[in-house]
Amino acid sequence: MALIVAKFGGTSVADVTKIKGAAMKIAREVERGHRVAVVVSAMAGVTNQLVEYCNQVDKLHDTREYDVVVASGEQITSGLMAMTLQKMGVKARSWQGWQLPIVTDDVHSKARIAEIKTAELLKSLHAGEVAVIPGFQGMTEDGRVTTLGRGGSDTSAVAIAAALDAERCDIYTDVDGVYTTDPRIVPHAKKIDKISYEEMLELASVGAKVLHIRSVEIAMKKDIPIQVLSSFEDHVGSDLPGTLVTREEDIVEQQLVTGVAYTRDEAKVTLLGVPDVPGVAAKIFSPLADAAVNVDMIVQNVSPDGKYTDMTFTVPQADLPRAIQTIKALKELKYRELQTSDTVAKVSVVGIGMKSHSGVANTMFKTLAEKSINIQVISTSEIKISVLIEQDYVELAVRSLHAAYGLEG
Amino acid sequence: MALIVAKFGGTSVADVTKIKGAAMKIAREVERGHRVAVVVSAMAGVTNQLVEYCNQVDKLHDTREYDVVVASGEQITSGLMAMTLQKMGVKARSWQGWQLPIVTDDVHSKARIAEIKTAELLKSLHAGEVAVIPGFQGMTEDGRVTTLGRGGSDTSAVAIAAALDAERCDIYTDVDGVYTTDPRIVPHAKKIDKISYEEMLELASVGAKVLHIRSVEIAMKKDIPIQVLSSFEDHVGSDLPGTLVTREEDIVEQQLVTGVAYTRDEAKVTLLGVPDVPGVAAKIFSPLADAAVNVDMIVQNVSPDGKYTDMTFTVPQADLPRAIQTIKALKELKYRELQTSDTVAKVSVVGIGMKSHSGVANTMFKTLAEKSINIQVISTSEIKISVLIEQDYVELAVRSLHAAYGLEG
Repeated sequence: MALIVAKFGGTSVADVTKIKGAAMKIAREVERGHRVAVVVSAMAGVTNQLVEYCNQVDKLHDTREYDVVVASGEQITSGLMAMTLQKMGVKARSWQGWQLPIVTDDVHSKARIAEIKTAELLKSLHAGEVAVIPGFQGMTEDGRVTTLGRGGSDTSAVAIAAALDAERCDIYTDVDGVYTTDPRIVPHAKKIDKISYEEMLELASVGAKVLHIRSVEIAMKKDIPIQVLSSFEDHVGSDLPGTLVTREEDIVEQQLVTGVAYTRDEAKVTLLGVPDVPGVAAKIFSPLADAAVNVDMIVQNVSPDGKYTDMTFTVPQADLPRAIQTIKALKELKYRELQTSDTVAKVSVVGIGMKSHSGVANTMFKTLAEKSINIQVISTSEIKISVLIEQDYVELAVRSLHAAYGLEG
Repeated sequence: MALIVAKFGGTSVADVTKIKGAAMKIAREVERGHRVAVVVSAMAGVTNQLVEYCNQVDKLHDTREYDVVVASGEQITSGLMAMTLQKMGVKARSWQGWQLPIVTDDVHSKARIAEIKTAELLKSLHAGEVAVIPGFQGMTEDGRVTTLGRGGSDTSAVAIAAALDAERCDIYTDVDGVYTTDPRIVPHAKKIDKISYEEMLELASVGAKVLHIRSVEIAMKKDIPIQVLSSFEDHVGSDLPGTLVTREEDIVEQQLVTGVAYTRDEAKVTLLGVPDVPGVAAKIFSPLADAAVNVDMIVQNVSPDGKYTDMTFTVPQADLPRAIQTIKALKELKYRELQTSDTVAKVSVVGIGMKSHSGVANTMFKTLAEKSINIQVISTSEIKISVLIEQDYVELAVRSLHAAYGLEG
């Protein structure tokens, strides 16, 4: 008997029939003798509708009231899921974010979980009741409704699993696992059976949309294995389906490169002819941080003459107008020219094996060169290499790299 | 400066544009220097959709989870209304049922309000914030979500007005007041300017759907004047628009008859040849009460031979199958024959003036006789006379009575 948390995304609970399908999976875990806490998203489309209402009222709406409005989507699903389980003869009740409570900070619309009180919840679970908890929701210390940001239900699930010291957290979604790359670009991409938290974190942050990045951070910190599963397939109990996100040590056969990810949501900013003097980087990036511009890759070339240098960095496309505005307002910053582009893409290869193997970067550069794809910016971490290229080449780059690292099925 | 409560029904907040219209009415009250608590229903159609989901899962769903699902409709409107007021420059915040809290009993799906805590609410109101409160919602002592039954937002509004000791409670709806009868039957029906709580109670209970009956009960008990208004018309401040529901003493010109109401939702049950012995009524009506059959009118004729009598009563149409089942299961009850009909209607004339005037009943009987409408059952209260007739004659009866009592415009 184990305690497990199972989370169902919006497409997995899109209507009453789908909710029944999800409930059957939970019922099976209960039959196996497990204690189960279920975390549910809003029915597909509901959150979008609610956000749309808020934007119709005012694009600059009060995020406290936005949270009140959008949190109701998950509330609806939680009640329906509890009813559906009961109808199957499974004891169940719903727990709203404020009922447990799930305490968060007061950064409304993208709150972070501070604490989850589990005393009442554990009592109910040990009495054999399935707990149905709306994802995405929280409550501030002083009792206002909060939400965790889009995709936040994954985070709810893993945080609840951590608070309950659960054996694992099952994330049921509309894909059957994490793939070596986007199957829409490489049809023969392979499902990854096991992946480390660190790799998943890098993949999540560079555009593999299976898991919310915060959920992986919490899973890594608290060591909660995440099993990503399709809610539309029937899994045989003994076989390990989907993708298991777990500790590096638990993965016996390590691949050099685990996956290739990409994102088109990038914009490039280049400042030509910036004086090459100490403190110039701070002069640029402090104001950008103050303006909440999320700077990602940064490259500063060595200046040939020791006087002027070129500075390039990337930001999410949505932040580009604010980045330009901020830079143009910098009275003290001298530069010759400001160039921007929003037709760039970032391609990344990720693999824990890189830590101990050289040559991974070289394979990447060689492969792209063979296809005449120009690399504009490079950034690396211990287990990731990212390059910025023209957006037109993104499919070609992903396909070539996927093949070059032997990831094909 | 006064403290007022304003309630907007589902059609008055059906979309973002209508919510803006409602918010403008509130903003005007704020400009006049009033403190305002706003009670909102779910957007028109939302509650029906949520109830439909619950019934799709299970017609015999857990009412605790039903309450979780349907309470979210009002939550959505409350957040949107608070945002809309803010957009107009009016300070506002939403308060969910559990945040105040509005404490109810635990009869889920038709809970009754036990207590409304107002300390935090009053602090906010006195700080100049408009309080936006979802109607229909409550919370049990042990923190489960409850709802007050369909139409319960009226009750929320009046109960909040009572708890806040408000000067009045404005109920904005899709009609512009209470009429002497249904304008669909009598196009020249007059809007009633003032009506007593008692009369409104009788009218509400016999089918005038403007106000939820519980709300009138609370208003009468706590003496909170209710102003029924159209949310789609622009009211001039000084003139008293709509219908004021208030104390009898505050109504100077009392009509003999205030209004004519009707309901088609009636079924008649007749037991022929029941032994005329003491205790026989209890033998019939106790089991019906236990089966939650809502018995309304009861008539027992004097038995001609002193041995057998006939017993007739009415129940809501939905309760008829359960009533028949209950009676047939009564082993100890002897009767010759069980007759039922669901093609009956109840027509009532209501007026506080009846208390001091005779002849009102006689006018009713004479008028119906002149139209050859057969009266099947009669019941009376101090301020109401109701008759049961064949449903086919309901329009004719209402029209004739409306004219006979001089209610035409």
